[in-house]
Amino acid sequence: MAIKVHGNPLSPAAQRVLLCLAEKDLEHEFVYVDLATGQQKKEPFISINVPAFEDGDLKLFESRAITKYIAHAYADKGTPLINHEDLKKMAIIGVWLEVEAQRFDAAGHKLSFEILVKPIKGWTTDEALVEQLQAQLTTVLDVYEKRLAQSKYLGGDNFSLADLHHVPIVNNLLKTKVKALFEERPHVWAWCEDILARPAWKKVLEGVKF
Amino acid sequence: MAIKVHGNPLSPAAQRVLLCLAEKDLEHEFVYVDLATGQQKKEPFISINVPAFEDGDLKLFESRAITKYIAHAYADKGTPLINHEDLKKMAIIGVWLEVEAQRFDAAGHKLSFEILVKPIKGWTTDEALVEQLQAQLTTVLDVYEKRLAQSKYLGGDNFSLADLHHVPIVNNLLKTKVKALFEERPHVWAWCEDILARPAWKKVLEGVKF
Repeated sequence: MAIKVHGNPLSPAAQRVLLCLAEKDLEHEFVYVDLATGQQKKEPFISINVPAFEDGDLKLFESRAITKYIAHAYADKGTPLINHEDLKKMAIIGVWLEVEAQRFDAAGHKLSFEILVKPIKGWTTDEALVEQLQAQLTTVLDVYEKRLAQSKYLGGDNFSLADLHHVPIVNNLLKTKVKALFEERPHVWAWCEDILARPAWKKVLEGVKF
Repeated sequence: MAIKVHGNPLSPAAQRVLLCLAEKDLEHEFVYVDLATGQQKKEPFISINVPAFEDGDLKLFESRAITKYIAHAYADKGTPLINHEDLKKMAIIGVWLEVEAQRFDAAGHKLSFEILVKPIKGWTTDEALVEQLQAQLTTVLDVYEKRLAQSKYLGGDNFSLADLHHVPIVNNLLKTKVKALFEERPHVWAWCEDILARPAWKKVLEGVKF
């Protein structure tokens, strides 16, 4: 099969790539990488990180670079994700792609690790860090509440890659005490319900088999 | 003038945007924002962050979203920065754009703040954090050394937006003790010398008047 994904289906980064492929309705082969055994630190993964991605002779890593490639290369398949025919609309999506990567994920990914992953592993949560990350997340969600009062999705009127990139971490955080931060912001909450209800995400979760 | 940049020319994020405009040889108006007085926290900046960017009726924020828009919208002007005609080459540049934003900047930006900005302001450097960030930066530079042994620039044979995004923080870090981390890696060091010698960067520094 031309498209291959190497990764662990429990990692938010791999889920981001799988969700993008599902929205695009693209067939692919999934190659399971066992992070627990450090397999990703052995060749051929050592130099590429996981998730890794192949499309014919093209090899990519970094989940957000992979999804952007898919969105451009398969622009006309499945859900349109980047509005590539209108550079100004694409640029607005681009702003929220950066906000996700630089602001939301910076707080959300670490929070998910501290309050969801660590308890599962039996490791000790760093409560001071959790406090700090919650404050950071609150600031980001205040910006989102304002934005989502103006437009249904972050990038505009339609679901885009900017929304998609949030799904795995939002899904994790809603299983934790910080769910309240999302619930108490009505536009953020409506957006969460909307993006988590997408059939493509349900398809990814079925594959993950929690 | 159609293009306006709002920001502080001393901030790496504003410098990233100015460098991109210089590489593209695009005229623009610069609107100085005094970060020290908290002007960026007042309207009209409160909701948009600085640097902010206008191109006619389009308003953007987040430096990397701005440069990507410029690279796409002015693809045929000045230095080509994203290889937009070849999606696979563009995707490789995309990988290194993500590595910069997610790995290099995560270590480099905070280090620059701790060991360059704080001493200038008379604030106390957090030495434990510096140790940790130096270790992170070392890991990233090891990956870069391997990559730059294979290709002259991060994204391929030609200078691209992936290299450009590094310039302001590399420029700052080379004024500090971590310069050694760059110098002791020959391919990284050749790359630093190359990207800092670009006429467009010299033009930006002249405007900054350190």
